[in-house]
Amino acid sequence: MIIVGELINASRKVIGEAIKAQDIEYIQKVARDEFAAGANYIDVNAGIFVGKEIDYLQWLVKAVQEVVGAPCCLDSPDPKAIEAALSVHKGIAMINSISLEKERYDALIPVVAGTDLKVVALCMSDEGMPETMNDRLKIADKLINGLVQNNVSLDNIYVDPLVQPISVNSTFAAEFINSVEAIMTQFKGVHTMCGLSNISYGLPERKFMNHAFAIMAITKGLDGLIINPLDKMMMASLITAETLIGRDDYCGRYLKAYRNKQFEM
Amino acid sequence: MIIVGELINASRKVIGEAIKAQDIEYIQKVARDEFAAGANYIDVNAGIFVGKEIDYLQWLVKAVQEVVGAPCCLDSPDPKAIEAALSVHKGIAMINSISLEKERYDALIPVVAGTDLKVVALCMSDEGMPETMNDRLKIADKLINGLVQNNVSLDNIYVDPLVQPISVNSTFAAEFINSVEAIMTQFKGVHTMCGLSNISYGLPERKFMNHAFAIMAITKGLDGLIINPLDKMMMASLITAETLIGRDDYCGRYLKAYRNKQFEM
Repeated sequence: MIIVGELINASRKVIGEAIKAQDIEYIQKVARDEFAAGANYIDVNAGIFVGKEIDYLQWLVKAVQEVVGAPCCLDSPDPKAIEAALSVHKGIAMINSISLEKERYDALIPVVAGTDLKVVALCMSDEGMPETMNDRLKIADKLINGLVQNNVSLDNIYVDPLVQPISVNSTFAAEFINSVEAIMTQFKGVHTMCGLSNISYGLPERKFMNHAFAIMAITKGLDGLIINPLDKMMMASLITAETLIGRDDYCGRYLKAYRNKQFEM
Repeated sequence: MIIVGELINASRKVIGEAIKAQDIEYIQKVARDEFAAGANYIDVNAGIFVGKEIDYLQWLVKAVQEVVGAPCCLDSPDPKAIEAALSVHKGIAMINSISLEKERYDALIPVVAGTDLKVVALCMSDEGMPETMNDRLKIADKLINGLVQNNVSLDNIYVDPLVQPISVNSTFAAEFINSVEAIMTQFKGVHTMCGLSNISYGLPERKFMNHAFAIMAITKGLDGLIINPLDKMMMASLITAETLIGRDDYCGRYLKAYRNKQFEM
């Protein structure tokens, strides 16, 4: 399973301030910590800085890659910011994200066409946020077909079915995880990925719910997550769920995590 | 979801000793605690006492029902012990369990035929323990058909697909939860139920794995569990999983559990 470390996001106050102050040491410490905790990609987001997002995103990519040997997940709704970040990125980045919103789609398709870039394909269109599994499948189908026709391989596509809060509608978690299962079944070879925290929006004990929801989504086939890898309970939950779903021969990774004290909270 | 409190089991040392000493106060305290924590049925098991199981099981049923207003889950592989326990039981008991083992099946079918008893139908036959989903489905099919032909309603049947340790074969958890899904889909109206602890046999951090496995099984439709209801993390996991799977309108039970401090470990 692919783990994207979510911490370097300007909407988090400490990160926003560090970016503004160009505090490279702090950013690099967070990147190192996320990598050491198991992140395969380091998400970088400077979205709150209108007019400066491009400069800051480039700065973040350089800062991160100076100290960790991992690719970044370039997190912006603005295709120009993604292109600029790509120009300074070493190795194969993940693009977070393309969607079916026309402006974003038309601008990003030429950027990813024929490349080996990993592409998060967010189930969102100009008609708004999807609510049901069918809404999501229709968007996923168009996104996957569009990407494949532009020579992006299935194995490089990470469909994000878009998590919506269970507090708004008690079917929203089930619709999401059923979408994961349907996408993984109907589009063999493609991946699914998501952030989790929206699921528990408006409720108490959010971490606890986020952990359970991650386990449920993995049960249905999810193989990518954008999370805080320093959340030990979350990482232990993921390792355990992967073992149980049959992705861990002889429980090797589970036992290794135990020896590394990853279950000690 | 149906919760069966598993603590009053003679194979647990404290309970075995309490039964031997006829310590009714201790047994009744455990029964009260399980009921208060949310158990719908109180499991009673005196299986380790060869030759005395019948007397002890009757004693347990009477002891439990003196103090809690819940039915028992009569837990024995011996049809004679189950019949004897039934004769002193008030209300509608759960029988744990019938299986496809010929001797057990033939003896228990007349006991449950045409009754309103709840029946755990364990996926085990004289050919041994099932390993794959197909093994389980074949046994479940015969058990369900046999019970229905003997006028046991689908709604009173709780199929236990039989949990086997992930340490023995890395597919065993997936085969189990896929069985739950197939049984719930192919036999509409039937229930599924299981104990959990076998899944983590031979591994460290067993509780943690059991919790994750419970969440995964609920994701696939499981609606009954034989657990320790005093395990707060387990109960919080179940409440959360039920909310996420869409069995909790407006997150009402989740919020109630929060107000009752059920998330405070």
